[in-house]
Amino acid sequence: MSATTAVAPLQIGVIGVGRIGRMHAALIAHQVPGAALGAVFDAHEPAAQGVAAELGVPAAASVGEIFGGDLDAVAICSSSDTHVELLLAAAEAGKAVFCEKPVSLDLTELDRALDAVQSAGIPFQIGFNRRFDPGHASVQQAVSSGAIGEPHLVRISSRDPAPPSLQYVKSSGGLFLDMMIHDFDMARFVTGREVVEVFARGAVRVEPSFAQAGDIDTALVTLVHDGGCLTAIDNSRRAAYGYDQRVEVFGSDGMAVSENPHGHTGAVLTAAGERRPALPYFFLERYLPSYVREWQAFVEAVNSGTTPPASTGDARAPLVIGLAAGRSLREGRPVRIEEVQAA
Amino acid sequence: MSATTAVAPLQIGVIGVGRIGRMHAALIAHQVPGAALGAVFDAHEPAAQGVAAELGVPAAASVGEIFGGDLDAVAICSSSDTHVELLLAAAEAGKAVFCEKPVSLDLTELDRALDAVQSAGIPFQIGFNRRFDPGHASVQQAVSSGAIGEPHLVRISSRDPAPPSLQYVKSSGGLFLDMMIHDFDMARFVTGREVVEVFARGAVRVEPSFAQAGDIDTALVTLVHDGGCLTAIDNSRRAAYGYDQRVEVFGSDGMAVSENPHGHTGAVLTAAGERRPALPYFFLERYLPSYVREWQAFVEAVNSGTTPPASTGDARAPLVIGLAAGRSLREGRPVRIEEVQAA
Amino acid sequence: MSATTAVAPLQIGVIGVGRIGRMHAALIAHQVPGAALGAVFDAHEPAAQGVAAELGVPAAASVGEIFGGDLDAVAICSSSDTHVELLLAAAEAGKAVFCEKPVSLDLTELDRALDAVQSAGIPFQIGFNRRFDPGHASVQQAVSSGAIGEPHLVRISSRDPAPPSLQYVKSSGGLFLDMMIHDFDMARFVTGREVVEVFARGAVRVEPSFAQAGDIDTALVTLVHDGGCLTAIDNSRRAAYGYDQRVEVFGSDGMAVSENPHGHTGAVLTAAGERRPALPYFFLERYLPSYVREWQAFVEAVNSGTTPPASTGDARAPLVIGLAAGRSLREGRPVRIEEVQAA
Amino acid sequence: MSATTAVAPLQIGVIGVGRIGRMHAALIAHQVPGAALGAVFDAHEPAAQGVAAELGVPAAASVGEIFGGDLDAVAICSSSDTHVELLLAAAEAGKAVFCEKPVSLDLTELDRALDAVQSAGIPFQIGFNRRFDPGHASVQQAVSSGAIGEPHLVRISSRDPAPPSLQYVKSSGGLFLDMMIHDFDMARFVTGREVVEVFARGAVRVEPSFAQAGDIDTALVTLVHDGGCLTAIDNSRRAAYGYDQRVEVFGSDGMAVSENPHGHTGAVLTAAGERRPALPYFFLERYLPSYVREWQAFVEAVNSGTTPPASTGDARAPLVIGLAAGRSLREGRPVRIEEVQAA
Repeated sequence: MSATTAVAPLQIGVIGVGRIGRMHAALIAHQVPGAALGAVFDAHEPAAQGVAAELGVPAAASVGEIFGGDLDAVAICSSSDTHVELLLAAAEAGKAVFCEKPVSLDLTELDRALDAVQSAGIPFQIGFNRRFDPGHASVQQAVSSGAIGEPHLVRISSRDPAPPSLQYVKSSGGLFLDMMIHDFDMARFVTGREVVEVFARGAVRVEPSFAQAGDIDTALVTLVHDGGCLTAIDNSRRAAYGYDQRVEVFGSDGMAVSENPHGHTGAVLTAAGERRPALPYFFLERYLPSYVREWQAFVEAVNSGTTPPASTGDARAPLVIGLAAGRSLREGRPVRIEEVQAA
Repeated sequence: MSATTAVAPLQIGVIGVGRIGRMHAALIAHQVPGAALGAVFDAHEPAAQGVAAELGVPAAASVGEIFGGDLDAVAICSSSDTHVELLLAAAEAGKAVFCEKPVSLDLTELDRALDAVQSAGIPFQIGFNRRFDPGHASVQQAVSSGAIGEPHLVRISSRDPAPPSLQYVKSSGGLFLDMMIHDFDMARFVTGREVVEVFARGAVRVEPSFAQAGDIDTALVTLVHDGGCLTAIDNSRRAAYGYDQRVEVFGSDGMAVSENPHGHTGAVLTAAGERRPALPYFFLERYLPSYVREWQAFVEAVNSGTTPPASTGDARAPLVIGLAAGRSLREGRPVRIEEVQAA
Repeated sequence: MSATTAVAPLQIGVIGVGRIGRMHAALIAHQVPGAALGAVFDAHEPAAQGVAAELGVPAAASVGEIFGGDLDAVAICSSSDTHVELLLAAAEAGKAVFCEKPVSLDLTELDRALDAVQSAGIPFQIGFNRRFDPGHASVQQAVSSGAIGEPHLVRISSRDPAPPSLQYVKSSGGLFLDMMIHDFDMARFVTGREVVEVFARGAVRVEPSFAQAGDIDTALVTLVHDGGCLTAIDNSRRAAYGYDQRVEVFGSDGMAVSENPHGHTGAVLTAAGERRPALPYFFLERYLPSYVREWQAFVEAVNSGTTPPASTGDARAPLVIGLAAGRSLREGRPVRIEEVQAA
Repeated sequence: MSATTAVAPLQIGVIGVGRIGRMHAALIAHQVPGAALGAVFDAHEPAAQGVAAELGVPAAASVGEIFGGDLDAVAICSSSDTHVELLLAAAEAGKAVFCEKPVSLDLTELDRALDAVQSAGIPFQIGFNRRFDPGHASVQQAVSSGAIGEPHLVRISSRDPAPPSLQYVKSSGGLFLDMMIHDFDMARFVTGREVVEVFARGAVRVEPSFAQAGDIDTALVTLVHDGGCLTAIDNSRRAAYGYDQRVEVFGSDGMAVSENPHGHTGAVLTAAGERRPALPYFFLERYLPSYVREWQAFVEAVNSGTTPPASTGDARAPLVIGLAAGRSLREGRPVRIEEVQAA
């Protein structure tokens, strides 16, 4: 075998083919060089068979078939409450594993799963796809290369175009664990610094029924990072103008920003001013390139034997920050990260 | 059969699976709702077999198999010199047909093919994909809706990131028929007005060897439209900063523009100023959404029995303008369109 | 006298002609329709004489000359510690008065001055010039007109191009009262809502010597407004790329933003990307139009007998917020506004 | 005398204080370091007296007083038909002279004036203020520094917000000599290359009455420069969205552009898209900084004994190009520059 030998495609099985899992399966099947879709499984059998037929792969009859076969890797895209058990199975089977976030909404459970993953020594990547967005990644690159000096201030805005259903919200873990968790990851990613303190304020402004679920839909959170960098994150469950996703790091030597794309590059100027289109409305539209690049990174890491770029530590820390944010909101005071970690 | 019956996917065969044909085949196979890839053919048999295997469809042994089978439509993506004969075959077979530009570099030949297409009454669409770019389309929409009034001035810039090979250039028909022909189409598309006069200036500035082929690589052309609108088109075979594609219509009540996207939405600001990424480099990267939308339009037109949005007249007019541009350049004077049409 | 009679220009005396006072004097003299510079005074006599000669007006020998004469209005631009006494004198003299911020760094003193102003019934305007910046004003207009619905989230960034001297900082009142006070005003201005709670985090990141003065140079503050709107304000004493001043309001129906201008509108694109110039470096360069419009508003208010657009309440509230921010920083907890007002 | 001796301000007299002359006088009086307004003159005596009173300088009773006195320089801002005689007088008097464009609409007359200026050896600057716009100047700088390589293609758009009166048009020399002459200058300025050929197309699209004056209001012109660079210039007498002024040079290594500023930096995003303000409407608003910098350049040139940056050659060449454009439009063919120069 020589350096020029082509590597065989990584055979990947996808567990859970709802909206996000089906997207992952289709990307693996058609758009990720070096990856191949080996099989799909879904607890709802017709769903698995539909996707299997569409993508020309077998539908596994059980998760056991997925873990027991000769697939190289597994993508866990089923409902969140199944992730821990599936990770334990992946560790047992020695499969490389990609897991959609969150691993768990419970820190003890998460630790149980991640401990098993680490003991087994399997490659593990958590699905924080936004790290792979080219604009956001350029911000991280500007910081890590030293181009903007030491980070002092970070601003992150994430605003969805429309709120989810109340039913979804009830089992979501709440805004901090379901939505802002992406931003907690982003704050760590772009600064390269852990978070040491969280202060949260939030309210129901968009969808009054969320109050029934004990949840909020609008929030503003301050993070203090190790080393002193300060991050402001705001979230809203409904932005009238589309899917608003921005990241900015201000440092001692400059600023790096990742702005929103518009729906297209056209504009119309009249006596009334200039009009441009709204933002892309849907997260798949906005972040599709990030999902492709996320899989490329997974394939490269597995093939090269290196740790995937968003691994166990990155799966844990945002949950802790989110739990601290929830406590801060309830108790009306800044909460130190170690208060949660001690729990 | 009722109004709610789902329409069966249009079965499409692709003839020619070089770079552009392979892209069309993959889009038809995976990304165009209502379309299905039925078969592929290529004069170079291994190419056909490779694409067929990749996309899970049969490789036809001959074009006869494509035209003789029960496919609904054919996409002609083979080399330009085969287009006329294939269109005649499509007309004969009564297949709906999508044809990459140009139909022919020779006006008599083009007329022969289009006459056959029209006599047969088959749906015909020419591959001017840029009409389907969302930004460019928004400019056309601003004009046709009356939002910017009567068009007075148009500016179109098309600049490739890198010149093609001399070998390619020699059989390309030259800059006006190979490259600027897209812009001639765009000028007609966005204004909704035919062209009546052409004045061209051009030179070899980028690649000295193109002079051997009797071609140019840099040009500036003035079009006069029916009704008086004036269009300036510039082309260069090499833009150092990427693939530069802009359209602007200035009218009595305003202006509509379609600008370039950047490679991503990130920016870095330092004491040295603000830095943004270069433009996308490759036409497939820039125009992928336009190809998808082009196929959606084809499928809709065939299914609904309406004329495809870029049809026989649109296939002919840009060739005539291009021939007039060539004559203007050679003779150093403005050339009326009817001078070419009379020929 | 009829409605068409031209109003005589408002005769204005300027007290204090350091950097900012000299600018105001020159604007009044040359660029504000309906205003005329009547006289200038400065405790440093040669300064007054220089500006007086340059602008062709008398240099008053004392503030008594300014208040005792027949000027219509007085602009208080001297050092902050003189403002209270000068306001008392203006109230006594019954002159309309424009006062640079702050009235005082001490709340009791400020109340003493504003009480006198209100008792005297003189027109009073506080120098929060940023309200008159056309971009920032467009944000306020979008909110007050209802164009973006109810405000939910506000982001304000103010970053100076370079830190002031340690000597200046020592008597400045600190970052919250000297610099962020503009942003506290902006938060009230654009939302139309009072602030009820403040949480502050800050540090010395730029200029270590500021620690000697007990001050910080980098801060992130959360405001909770009456009605629930949440505001994030960040400040830095040094932005490498110029004077960074942005305001954004996100509401139930949309978002209004005021972005930074660049130094000019040029850009250069090469294979290395796109380069634009840095931001304007100096606040006078960035905000000159706001100062002119500030004076226009003052003149209109005095002439029409209406309350100036930034008056006594607007002079007081930001000081209270700033004092709350200082307490929050010291005590490490969110501080309610009434905790300060009760003091 | 030492290097640190302050230079006395240049005493400048302004002849003609209509709209543009009054602006120049006010700038000289207040905003140009190193310049002082010495006197003003206007054939309409009350105009001169009004401006003189406003700016605190004498109103000269005759041009003789301006030229006979001890002023250092004269600004010729009177009506175009007086420029030649005034330049002859300035040459006779040995005064440095700034002259608004055009020197004359007649080439023979222009040569007579410029010959006298050159024989006298007086400093001469022509009022092509746009060269001093920071954005446009950055384009020229990008070319002259080599940052974008050899220039290949230039695009210039100049569109006024509203047409002038028919009366003005009748004596203006027509669109090419009155309006596009600025763009002919710009094309030479940014490329550093003389023009060798002109092709023009134009029409009446905006204001039908201009046809009575034998003029057009909409035009598109192709210039061929020495060395092969191609320039497209378009003009319209009415842009609904404001004062549109853009310059772009495309070269072998990149592109430099100067874009339009918006009226302010605010934007509003809603479900209907993003709205930005229209462009500044008035040329003084758009180009004020260019006028200030134009005067700074004049003062520096006179003080240092160097040739002003837009001097006699720059006053002549655009007139020749404009005359060639007129002939091209009338004769329907490209016109070589030497055809006009031979005349």
